[in-house]
Amino acid sequence: MYFASDNWAGAHPRINDALARQAGGYAAAYGASDLDRRIEASFNDLFGQEVAVFFVSTGTAANALALASVNRPGGVSFCHREAHVIEDECGAPEFFTHGARLVPVDGDDGKMDPERLRGEIARFPPDFVHSGQPMAITMTQASEIGTVYTPHETRAIAAIAREHGLPLHMDGARFANALVHLGLTPHQMTLDLGVDIISFGATKNGCWCAEALVFLDPEMGRDLPFIRKRAAQLFSKSRFVAAQFEAYLADDLWLDLARHANGMADLLREGLSSADHAQLAWATVTNEVFAIISNERIRQLRAAGAQFYDWHPPRSCRHRIGPDESLVRLVTSFATSSEDIERFVELTHRPCA
Amino acid sequence: MYFASDNWAGAHPRINDALARQAGGYAAAYGASDLDRRIEASFNDLFGQEVAVFFVSTGTAANALALASVNRPGGVSFCHREAHVIEDECGAPEFFTHGARLVPVDGDDGKMDPERLRGEIARFPPDFVHSGQPMAITMTQASEIGTVYTPHETRAIAAIAREHGLPLHMDGARFANALVHLGLTPHQMTLDLGVDIISFGATKNGCWCAEALVFLDPEMGRDLPFIRKRAAQLFSKSRFVAAQFEAYLADDLWLDLARHANGMADLLREGLSSADHAQLAWATVTNEVFAIISNERIRQLRAAGAQFYDWHPPRSCRHRIGPDESLVRLVTSFATSSEDIERFVELTHRPCA
Amino acid sequence: MYFASDNWAGAHPRINDALARQAGGYAAAYGASDLDRRIEASFNDLFGQEVAVFFVSTGTAANALALASVNRPGGVSFCHREAHVIEDECGAPEFFTHGARLVPVDGDDGKMDPERLRGEIARFPPDFVHSGQPMAITMTQASEIGTVYTPHETRAIAAIAREHGLPLHMDGARFANALVHLGLTPHQMTLDLGVDIISFGATKNGCWCAEALVFLDPEMGRDLPFIRKRAAQLFSKSRFVAAQFEAYLADDLWLDLARHANGMADLLREGLSSADHAQLAWATVTNEVFAIISNERIRQLRAAGAQFYDWHPPRSCRHRIGPDESLVRLVTSFATSSEDIERFVELTHRPCA
Amino acid sequence: MYFASDNWAGAHPRINDALARQAGGYAAAYGASDLDRRIEASFNDLFGQEVAVFFVSTGTAANALALASVNRPGGVSFCHREAHVIEDECGAPEFFTHGARLVPVDGDDGKMDPERLRGEIARFPPDFVHSGQPMAITMTQASEIGTVYTPHETRAIAAIAREHGLPLHMDGARFANALVHLGLTPHQMTLDLGVDIISFGATKNGCWCAEALVFLDPEMGRDLPFIRKRAAQLFSKSRFVAAQFEAYLADDLWLDLARHANGMADLLREGLSSADHAQLAWATVTNEVFAIISNERIRQLRAAGAQFYDWHPPRSCRHRIGPDESLVRLVTSFATSSEDIERFVELTHRPCA
Repeated sequence: MYFASDNWAGAHPRINDALARQAGGYAAAYGASDLDRRIEASFNDLFGQEVAVFFVSTGTAANALALASVNRPGGVSFCHREAHVIEDECGAPEFFTHGARLVPVDGDDGKMDPERLRGEIARFPPDFVHSGQPMAITMTQASEIGTVYTPHETRAIAAIAREHGLPLHMDGARFANALVHLGLTPHQMTLDLGVDIISFGATKNGCWCAEALVFLDPEMGRDLPFIRKRAAQLFSKSRFVAAQFEAYLADDLWLDLARHANGMADLLREGLSSADHAQLAWATVTNEVFAIISNERIRQLRAAGAQFYDWHPPRSCRHRIGPDESLVRLVTSFATSSEDIERFVELTHRPCA
Repeated sequence: MYFASDNWAGAHPRINDALARQAGGYAAAYGASDLDRRIEASFNDLFGQEVAVFFVSTGTAANALALASVNRPGGVSFCHREAHVIEDECGAPEFFTHGARLVPVDGDDGKMDPERLRGEIARFPPDFVHSGQPMAITMTQASEIGTVYTPHETRAIAAIAREHGLPLHMDGARFANALVHLGLTPHQMTLDLGVDIISFGATKNGCWCAEALVFLDPEMGRDLPFIRKRAAQLFSKSRFVAAQFEAYLADDLWLDLARHANGMADLLREGLSSADHAQLAWATVTNEVFAIISNERIRQLRAAGAQFYDWHPPRSCRHRIGPDESLVRLVTSFATSSEDIERFVELTHRPCA
Repeated sequence: MYFASDNWAGAHPRINDALARQAGGYAAAYGASDLDRRIEASFNDLFGQEVAVFFVSTGTAANALALASVNRPGGVSFCHREAHVIEDECGAPEFFTHGARLVPVDGDDGKMDPERLRGEIARFPPDFVHSGQPMAITMTQASEIGTVYTPHETRAIAAIAREHGLPLHMDGARFANALVHLGLTPHQMTLDLGVDIISFGATKNGCWCAEALVFLDPEMGRDLPFIRKRAAQLFSKSRFVAAQFEAYLADDLWLDLARHANGMADLLREGLSSADHAQLAWATVTNEVFAIISNERIRQLRAAGAQFYDWHPPRSCRHRIGPDESLVRLVTSFATSSEDIERFVELTHRPCA
Repeated sequence: MYFASDNWAGAHPRINDALARQAGGYAAAYGASDLDRRIEASFNDLFGQEVAVFFVSTGTAANALALASVNRPGGVSFCHREAHVIEDECGAPEFFTHGARLVPVDGDDGKMDPERLRGEIARFPPDFVHSGQPMAITMTQASEIGTVYTPHETRAIAAIAREHGLPLHMDGARFANALVHLGLTPHQMTLDLGVDIISFGATKNGCWCAEALVFLDPEMGRDLPFIRKRAAQLFSKSRFVAAQFEAYLADDLWLDLARHANGMADLLREGLSSADHAQLAWATVTNEVFAIISNERIRQLRAAGAQFYDWHPPRSCRHRIGPDESLVRLVTSFATSSEDIERFVELTHRPCA
């Protein structure tokens, strides 16, 4: 019962096969192989136009390099208060942008509230050197807490970005999970709504290491080849990443895997919603489920082998957490089995001893 | 006939098998898995004492983070004029050290000359703020041009490092190739000679992505966990790197692979030394061979499918290169076949049409 | 009626005389002159022990270099939400610390609340690389909004700093104004209370350009000579700064000037507290006064030649600001005349036309 | 006999008077005063077109911020091997450019040789991410060793800059000394020859602290307001710098002072050229004189009160320095008296005891 994180899972067999196929033979290094070029080009199909694609080693790299590519001195970027970039990347965005600040924006359900975003941007008047200058907005889709920006909500954020001349970055560590939930194409969830740059994550959804930084306007990524190399993020045997993406995108594997993960979370949500000793902390729609469970029950679950993390209650949590209970996060993945879900749910339904 | 670079090869079957074994199952992310811990600990055995080990994604990352860990403001590091850190890393060392300078040191055969090193360091008197302060020495073993520092030579560099209180870093992108040439243990080639930090590369020698930064004194790497995470170099599914190292080090696979690569280069050296239309540019001992070949013959070789790069003649090149010939670099790897060597050599012996 | 800021004033005649005395003659450059050395040493007397002193060009430089001297990778520093370092320095602290984050701490009256400070620090558990590592606490004395940390309050902050092994920095852009209000010696307001590093500002209080960074433990400033030079903050004719400090500290000029500025603010506070058309927004004790004044009256005051800024209401503001009134900041200085205060007060008492 | 450096002198009386005039009164801070604006505008007259001007605290700041304004990731800038930016600024250029590299270019007489410059640039092919990308050329006028680029020589450098699309920066710490030697206007020595950015130094030539960064194309300095503030280089009482520049430029004071300094150096050159115990090390034309003097004579000169530095022989030094003699640098300034020159020369002519 592994619900600690989707990155605890390994790699899908078809990803593994793709890696194995690269083991033999020779190919040009540093992203110059035919395979690298071909897979980069396949992103054009994915987004319905020519885009610029850069493979990097981690999601943090994709996010930090995205922000580095659009920041200038005194830069300030805006993100949700609970976003990965501000909470979990050890200052990588600040480091790679040479000190640009991340300004937290409040908003329910792990999503920036447009009015609050507008208010935060307004604190940085143009040409007022003392406070700095707005440079970018970064949103997380799906969000850190299992929710998803609707097209309407993304459009509202994008409109503010356009109004202030700011590029809009989407941290898509769980891009596929949001996509299948919304039933949109990559093109529809980004370009059509006003997104400019995407951290396109595949590691959490079945690869072992496949992250891409995508600029929908290639010109915006003009300096990225140098930014990436200077950041020590240019793989010599880059084709092993390309190969993972090839298998990932082929025959909609990535969408199937995300659907599976979301579906497993649906089972979990359903099971927990009727449990006596657990309740959903807030509504989620992707592969993350947050539950408030009694401490005793948590101990039993862990004793039975369930793996999951306690979670710091975000401002978005609307339920009161009692003294004898805790908030926990449960994450499903491409590898989660319905048996594990059933067993976990069954344990939450069982009467306490 | 792939002699462009050792990183054009794929991955050894045993490395591939190790990756495949990780595909299934679950394990703690971000380097916290049992496998990560176990393989990190296996480096203690390798170096005969407790060391601190950090997996990163590229050799450039290992080098840059090594230098970042020992630099302070106004820092200056010393390397050979033709070293990878100063020639081929797009300023990553400067970026990750927040602007520390790399000072090139001359020396024959791609190796720093101790007297010249001493002379360069002397240009930075202690407490003279205008020029900056010496912080580290970094040597490349094997060197960029196929040579190897003898124990005596390494000791001479290390003595200067000690004298000035500077840590000595070894860029070991081709650590194994140097090691088997010298017939030393890792411990003997580093700790015994005064090396402090090692970029321990395995990618070029049969892995697809396995680089480790090793601090022989763990205290020296105290901040590395934060430096690595801030550098976006902490893999979530880190155990896939650990698995590669496990297979790489098991049963001396790594030494066998390096011996094979060096041996193939020996064949090449032997074959070229008797060729009419090619000559060795200088003596090398690892898996790199530099040859001066007539331009017409080069065209023939490439027409026959040989892959290799023209090379900019380093100061270390003692032969005059005529107007109708060029310097080329030929690199063998764990994957090179003797058939390819024989065919290439045969082509260099064949009379020109 | 110049109440825009204390840095709108020029230089006190004795500061000016000191500069004039340096115009002739010769002296060693880059801080090596006898005068530089002598004035640096005079800070030992000021703080009652050997300290390390570094002249820099701006208060922002003092703050940013102080934080740079104590930050390491992934560093996080804590300051009040309305502090100058986080609001008005265009990201200089982040830039000079290579991306360390400033975490805002709430608290009434422009002062960090100890419990909230503790809470923010707790969000960064030791060795948890994802969030970063606490590195320093910086407090502003006097605060940005005219208040002063009492010795008791400073001790509470310092205790938290000690508990977590963090150095405590004091932004003393208005150090003298706080000092004379509290009736303490420099030693009593810093060392005795647990402060480690001080941005010792003199520019706002009668110099034209005299800022010093003071390390009460000289060892903590060990790298500052290189940090300062690399930051382009080492004046060649540094003795002109030293000369300003000499005159500033001689015969307690600095304390007299601060007493004058605070006294002028007292007159203003007294005058406004009985005005019909203005009220004090909150209690201040130094040379800053914040008032809520009707918009019509503000227009009249400005028409009469009064210079002051509208101010964004901080969270500390406890009064409701009506639709027809605004919050304004009024700053007195060493150069403020009682005539100007009287005239301004008289204008606020006059009935609206 | 103060010949240690031109920055050992104080401030010219008219500079001092200008500072005194600013002591009283009030003016807007942070460069927004009428005086700041007016003096900034006066640079338009100086250069014969609209330029962008930014006051900073040191020459190192001007140079480093100039390079920061035109560098992008992986950036590489070119300067003479003995330039101040690479020899004497403790890595400030690298720090402010986030790690851009300075590549030394050889050339006689302290001036970059155009062919060698071309050769160094050629080492960085466009789009080759491994080596980095050329970003700027910076020349020192007058040079560090007392020479001056002729218009022809500057044009040759500028042509290379244009060819590669690189901005050309001029470090003008001794701009005036070069200008009066060449008999050109500021416009003629820069814009007409292809210079883009100037570090316009006045501190060495009679101010106590007056350095300006001038962009001949204001658009090129678009981000400088933020770069400067983030660099902690925006003076609050900026008008004191403006006042110095006002007096400096008024009635050609600056040209008179530079003529005086150069003239004093002429006297020195003349005197030394006929001395038995000293000889000029190479030909200089500004206010720096380099002489080879016997060690015994050096001791006598110092015993008689002469102040000057030993100098590390640059590659440009064409004379052999014997075992009993040393190379010394003698710098004159606006404050140097002919009496001091005469006395010094007389001492070099006197027979050794």
